[in-house]
Amino acid sequence: MQAAITEAVAAAATGLNRYPDREFTELRQALAEYLGHGLSPDNIWAANGSNEVLQQILQAFGGPGRKALGFPPTYSMYPLLASGTDTEYVRGVRAEDYGLDAASAAAQVRETGANIVFLCSPNNPTGTGLGLDVVEAVYEAGEASQAIVIVDEAYHEFAHDNTPSALTLLPGRERLIVSRTMSKAFALAGARLGYMAAAPEVTDAIRLVRLPYHLSAVTQATALAALTHREALMADVEDIKVQRDRIVTELLRMGLKPAASDSNYVFFGGLEEPHAIWQGLLDAGVLIRDVGIPGHLRVTAGTEQETTAFLEALESLLNGTAPQHA
Amino acid sequence: MQAAITEAVAAAATGLNRYPDREFTELRQALAEYLGHGLSPDNIWAANGSNEVLQQILQAFGGPGRKALGFPPTYSMYPLLASGTDTEYVRGVRAEDYGLDAASAAAQVRETGANIVFLCSPNNPTGTGLGLDVVEAVYEAGEASQAIVIVDEAYHEFAHDNTPSALTLLPGRERLIVSRTMSKAFALAGARLGYMAAAPEVTDAIRLVRLPYHLSAVTQATALAALTHREALMADVEDIKVQRDRIVTELLRMGLKPAASDSNYVFFGGLEEPHAIWQGLLDAGVLIRDVGIPGHLRVTAGTEQETTAFLEALESLLNGTAPQHA
Repeated sequence: MQAAITEAVAAAATGLNRYPDREFTELRQALAEYLGHGLSPDNIWAANGSNEVLQQILQAFGGPGRKALGFPPTYSMYPLLASGTDTEYVRGVRAEDYGLDAASAAAQVRETGANIVFLCSPNNPTGTGLGLDVVEAVYEAGEASQAIVIVDEAYHEFAHDNTPSALTLLPGRERLIVSRTMSKAFALAGARLGYMAAAPEVTDAIRLVRLPYHLSAVTQATALAALTHREALMADVEDIKVQRDRIVTELLRMGLKPAASDSNYVFFGGLEEPHAIWQGLLDAGVLIRDVGIPGHLRVTAGTEQETTAFLEALESLLNGTAPQHA
Repeated sequence: MQAAITEAVAAAATGLNRYPDREFTELRQALAEYLGHGLSPDNIWAANGSNEVLQQILQAFGGPGRKALGFPPTYSMYPLLASGTDTEYVRGVRAEDYGLDAASAAAQVRETGANIVFLCSPNNPTGTGLGLDVVEAVYEAGEASQAIVIVDEAYHEFAHDNTPSALTLLPGRERLIVSRTMSKAFALAGARLGYMAAAPEVTDAIRLVRLPYHLSAVTQATALAALTHREALMADVEDIKVQRDRIVTELLRMGLKPAASDSNYVFFGGLEEPHAIWQGLLDAGVLIRDVGIPGHLRVTAGTEQETTAFLEALESLLNGTAPQHA
């Protein structure tokens, strides 16, 4: 895989004196093929990371006097991206268990008259996927304000096999955008390639705000090579899903409260002293994340061995016995 | 050179599963060393092309209620970048010959109360460099409105040897920014690397608006390799300067009016039918640019052979004899 990327970039390096393909046509073609669902290159847009994709959407559809709605706890960049584009950010509410149902989400879209809605699925940091009924209801509720509905599927490749993507809802919904990234399942965070699928009218609107030649020739070559060789890159995804499910099962057995996860991490509550647990895990050589939500922590699924180390250390801490350093 | 870039990217490819160095420390160090003038990495910022650098400056210092001043004809992206960040763009005026002197520029800064001033030097599309007295006067005039003064030196490496950079003015001027690019003299347009030098307070302000991990690991590796091997990449610069000066001399001899050029192109007037000349050159296999300024055209200096082809074709057209296709 690294050899393929190196080879692709070596080829690109011979032409670096020229500006890159401003329309990144080959890459859009490859992304359309990867996503499937009958999408064509006209449906595809990409930028330097999904943050830049989201920023461009806000530049095109947000701005002064425009309102974006998100449902915290959710991806922490949404309010920052809104602020950076002078778009008002409205914080919606979720249920007690951080779930979001169709009726509640739709009502909040109607009440706020949001021009842009962020639906993160699976949600970061809880890991739980949204039912497509929520996306449909939010889309319909956004009719009055002509809301652009963004379904951020950064972690979709980790979803359970029967979980449909919002891509299935694109036909006939010209205000719907599904965003993705190569940073997670493709394990290509260093290459910075985020992308999205939407109606051609939407990608055309974004073309108006993007900076010319925003995607370098090396970025295009790297992403193309990664897509061509995606089987190798994505080989770990199935293993990670197994470990993710194992973590959920084991945490339940320990009496903790893991959220249902369609991502590569597990968000869990039921902890009396989360910081002490976090510190105890760190002392045992296991780094997980305190995402700043009272009583909760988040752990990313790794290899089988890493997962075992985490589970054993956590169980020792919960039992009040100091875990041995790995 | 291509080998060095390929090798650097091959090394980077082994770590693409990790996010890139968010602070691109090595690259800032290398850029500081390249620029000299006692600059340290704290003075340096970079992004995906100088357009993104300028956009980030406007995100940090522009926005609703803020005013940016440019002096057309100048780089066509300034008004677009201002519009994209909801910054008002004010069009200043130049002298009849497209020159801009210190007194006029300073007066316009005072009159407009601009918060941001774009000084393009050498100016695109005229190619003429600005005296540092203009930069100094604009900076002083911007004291009242605390204006950020951007000197866009995208083409500086093509300037005549005795032309000082605005980098020499940075000490003690914390509102001054000098922007550069690797697209031109480094012949690395495909890599998309723009950068700037300013006071650390300014780079810190831009750090607040940039998207996290905006510079990919491959971009960082490519730019670093190019800087390390810059002697090879920049070998053509001196040849291009010779051809640029030759074009100016020859156009004067033909009775045309070339602007003084410190860049890799020559902007020239004195044409009665510029479009016919443009078309005639194209028919002769020579592509130059019609930059939309009445009576003028712009030609980029190439190799000695390309320059000869251009000059011969142009002279034939001016003499009313059809040039032979190259």
